[in-house]
Amino acid sequence: MPKNLEISILLDYYGGMLTDKQREVVEWYYNEDLSLAEIAEHTGITRQGVRDSIKRAESQLLDCESRLGLRCRFAKIQKALDEISEQASYLQEEGTRTPGTQSLWKRTQRIIDLTDEIAW
Amino acid sequence: MPKNLEISILLDYYGGMLTDKQREVVEWYYNEDLSLAEIAEHTGITRQGVRDSIKRAESQLLDCESRLGLRCRFAKIQKALDEISEQASYLQEEGTRTPGTQSLWKRTQRIIDLTDEIAW
Repeated sequence: MPKNLEISILLDYYGGMLTDKQREVVEWYYNEDLSLAEIAEHTGITRQGVRDSIKRAESQLLDCESRLGLRCRFAKIQKALDEISEQASYLQEEGTRTPGTQSLWKRTQRIIDLTDEIAW
Repeated sequence: MPKNLEISILLDYYGGMLTDKQREVVEWYYNEDLSLAEIAEHTGITRQGVRDSIKRAESQLLDCESRLGLRCRFAKIQKALDEISEQASYLQEEGTRTPGTQSLWKRTQRIIDLTDEIAW
């Protein structure tokens, strides 16, 4: 079964929509890199049962993204935050060449810190 | 039936999880301010049917928020964006008092524009 690496990202956004059991199985498979056989052993369900459960969870996660588009939305936000942080860093660098720049340094640093805080 | 104004906000985040018909009814009720009787007339279902449909949609939207917490997450992002924009505006104002500030003006303006672009 080929691993769809997008699933790991979608799990981060939409994991809350799965049942606890489903989420656990998918996390073991995608984030902990356990094999189907290992998960089957842990859970006491068959290897085929594990595979079906992962497949169902995958299509649920993909369905959530097609309905809500969070991954896409947050990618845009993150891109903008990266540029904001970059602009603030340039301002900071440029500011060190002029006198009386303590306020500039503080404000740009606050902007950079805020972009870090709200990164996903 | 008292209107829960939070629903209108949740509809914006999670409307995609409802069926087209459900979403339409809830939008009429919350965003267009149509009465149950008016919606019943439009859709050809009973007033009680409309009420039930709205109630079901409401609990689905509240369930989505308790599972994914987007409203809460975006509120935090928006608060940070507002402060970033404010800090950039202060920098811009302070910059007008010193010479050679074209770059400062441009960069802070870009930061302000970016915070606007990614607001929900």
